[in-house]
Amino acid sequence: MNNRKSVEALRLMANNNTSTAGKAITCRAGAPLVIEEVVVDPPKSGELRIKIICTSLCHSDLTFFNLVVPPACFPRILGHEAVGMVESVGDGVIEVVEGDMVIPVFMSDCGECRDCKSKKSNLCTEFPFRVDPWMHDGTSRFRDLNGQTIHHFMFVSSFTEYTVVHRANVIKLNPAIPPSRACLLACGVSTGVGAAWRSASVERGSTVAIFGLGSIGLAVAEGARLCGAARIIGIDVNPNKFALSKKFGVTDFIDSTSCTEKSVSQMVNELTDGGADYCFECVGRASLVEEAYACCRKGWGKTIVVGVDRPGSLLKFASTEVLHSGKIILGSLFGGLKPKLDIPILVNKYMDKELELDKFVTHEVGFEEINKAFDLLHQGKSLRCVIWMDR
Amino acid sequence: MNNRKSVEALRLMANNNTSTAGKAITCRAGAPLVIEEVVVDPPKSGELRIKIICTSLCHSDLTFFNLVVPPACFPRILGHEAVGMVESVGDGVIEVVEGDMVIPVFMSDCGECRDCKSKKSNLCTEFPFRVDPWMHDGTSRFRDLNGQTIHHFMFVSSFTEYTVVHRANVIKLNPAIPPSRACLLACGVSTGVGAAWRSASVERGSTVAIFGLGSIGLAVAEGARLCGAARIIGIDVNPNKFALSKKFGVTDFIDSTSCTEKSVSQMVNELTDGGADYCFECVGRASLVEEAYACCRKGWGKTIVVGVDRPGSLLKFASTEVLHSGKIILGSLFGGLKPKLDIPILVNKYMDKELELDKFVTHEVGFEEINKAFDLLHQGKSLRCVIWMDR
Repeated sequence: MNNRKSVEALRLMANNNTSTAGKAITCRAGAPLVIEEVVVDPPKSGELRIKIICTSLCHSDLTFFNLVVPPACFPRILGHEAVGMVESVGDGVIEVVEGDMVIPVFMSDCGECRDCKSKKSNLCTEFPFRVDPWMHDGTSRFRDLNGQTIHHFMFVSSFTEYTVVHRANVIKLNPAIPPSRACLLACGVSTGVGAAWRSASVERGSTVAIFGLGSIGLAVAEGARLCGAARIIGIDVNPNKFALSKKFGVTDFIDSTSCTEKSVSQMVNELTDGGADYCFECVGRASLVEEAYACCRKGWGKTIVVGVDRPGSLLKFASTEVLHSGKIILGSLFGGLKPKLDIPILVNKYMDKELELDKFVTHEVGFEEINKAFDLLHQGKSLRCVIWMDR
Repeated sequence: MNNRKSVEALRLMANNNTSTAGKAITCRAGAPLVIEEVVVDPPKSGELRIKIICTSLCHSDLTFFNLVVPPACFPRILGHEAVGMVESVGDGVIEVVEGDMVIPVFMSDCGECRDCKSKKSNLCTEFPFRVDPWMHDGTSRFRDLNGQTIHHFMFVSSFTEYTVVHRANVIKLNPAIPPSRACLLACGVSTGVGAAWRSASVERGSTVAIFGLGSIGLAVAEGARLCGAARIIGIDVNPNKFALSKKFGVTDFIDSTSCTEKSVSQMVNELTDGGADYCFECVGRASLVEEAYACCRKGWGKTIVVGVDRPGSLLKFASTEVLHSGKIILGSLFGGLKPKLDIPILVNKYMDKELELDKFVTHEVGFEEINKAFDLLHQGKSLRCVIWMDR
């Protein structure tokens, strides 16, 4: 962990007892290792400044922390799964006020563009998804004490005591939900649950196969369980994951490293009498997408691409098979969820004890221990580690 | 056209005035060139023998006529778009009786398997789609006067005065519809119309792009028009096709050979302000499927593979694009139609003057002129040429 990365978190220095609205805030920032003071500018028009309460660590943070070539850029404040309280709002922000609990979310929902107005798309045209180092207007709200610009991450940047987000990237939250559970809905869990619920529309009594039982794959299982899937087959290279995955609804397990006489797709086809109704690829490897496609039931099977593959990777399907099989291929970004519509629904499902979020939280640490959260994830020991800013 | 192919049609020799049920029928058969007498055995259990009234020529007949390597096999009776009258039925056939008008159809619909019982699949498991040289039981009902076996084609074989089909491959027909129109519903027109109507579920007011304006592409246009598409963009290498295609609902035309400064997908994206809602590939070329995918609107665009590509051809899609675009890829075999459910609906749509079949029939000839039908199709001069068996 090098010094270039040392400014990736923030702590408020003072002025707790005076109004901070409209003024730059100096606070502590940083994952990994060094936590530094940074200045957080007031929100511009259409933006709001949030006091982060807690933030969980997602694998994308780790990926971008380890990335040293573009699109990596430093210094940058990572973090994108958080809950916070609105500290102040810029002009034109009417949906939330100071003191509201909110989830900042990397997927924009402007509410005005053709996509946001459509029931079929979650890909806001006004503020498209990208791993951008800036706010939507191409500027930063973060600088260090020497005035050097610090980059944003995915329009959220939650490894800081204060951040600024656009109103298109914030969901007002029912304050009854514990922040350490709500923060999970900002990315990983929603991505997996949504992939089953919204992208695939998993039907009651159906069969599901999931490639990769990391947090996203387990969240797909949770989503499929919620939708009433009768059989959920988990596929992973690590047989130790089966015991854990049972808690998420996985009913059958295939250790892909032990598939010597039969391929995974042959095994899934046998287990499901002809193929699973829905096959989710949650690893990010083209060959597994193709294997998932082979696992699908002819006539209606859906292959849902959830895993993030390396740039340039190609998915290949036999033309004849696509024509003759009746199978469907689709991708799922943020689980196909429309943030402002669907996150509150998931919150309600948690409050109604349908959606089980608690089992995803394996660790909780204070902000000073953020490196421990990175280490646990890197070592595969955690699903979600919640980082509390005030501990 | 060689002699191996000379037994591909049949004519009844005699016994017009006596009951033929239960006896072998000797009749005239053949496309191209030589029409020979063949013997048509009585239907076995679950089968029926049909007197063909008329049959139209589909491109698949031409393809298999020209094919000299497997899966080609000779002698064989081609033809699979027909209307006929039930001459006799085998044991266990209760859905039709002697004298009923029927459409034999290559896609089976057993009504009993999981696929036939499902609303989501048209791929009968009991009698799967294949270009098979036999009846479902692996035997033939055709032989020449020397007793040599003649092969079937796609479970139909309609270039003969009499044929035998399984009850899973026959649709009882409202006799009010002219046979020369109903026969089109056995393959090509249904494939195209169904691709828009059933496979893609084209929505009212939507935008459609169609690659290839042959009979299938025009049938897709007709289906999209029926579904209320607001804009239908036809793409072809032959600019002369635009005038004709307007009759089928095509509103805009792109001559792909003149796309030098911009790609077809760039042009479609400009015409539709971001991509068509549905893109159909009706040529059978992987590169065009990929171009069709690039033409699709992010968020919800569907790419529907309709064209039959050469065996071994691969469709390639960038993994990142599949994940991030929200686009859907699917194939459409027989337009996704469930034969026994959907063909009667299309018949009704024709009778109600919604579905326009007349414009597909460019030529009508007598059985003796079947070679003319092949020539017209080969030369690109016909859409559908109806061959009347009694002329």
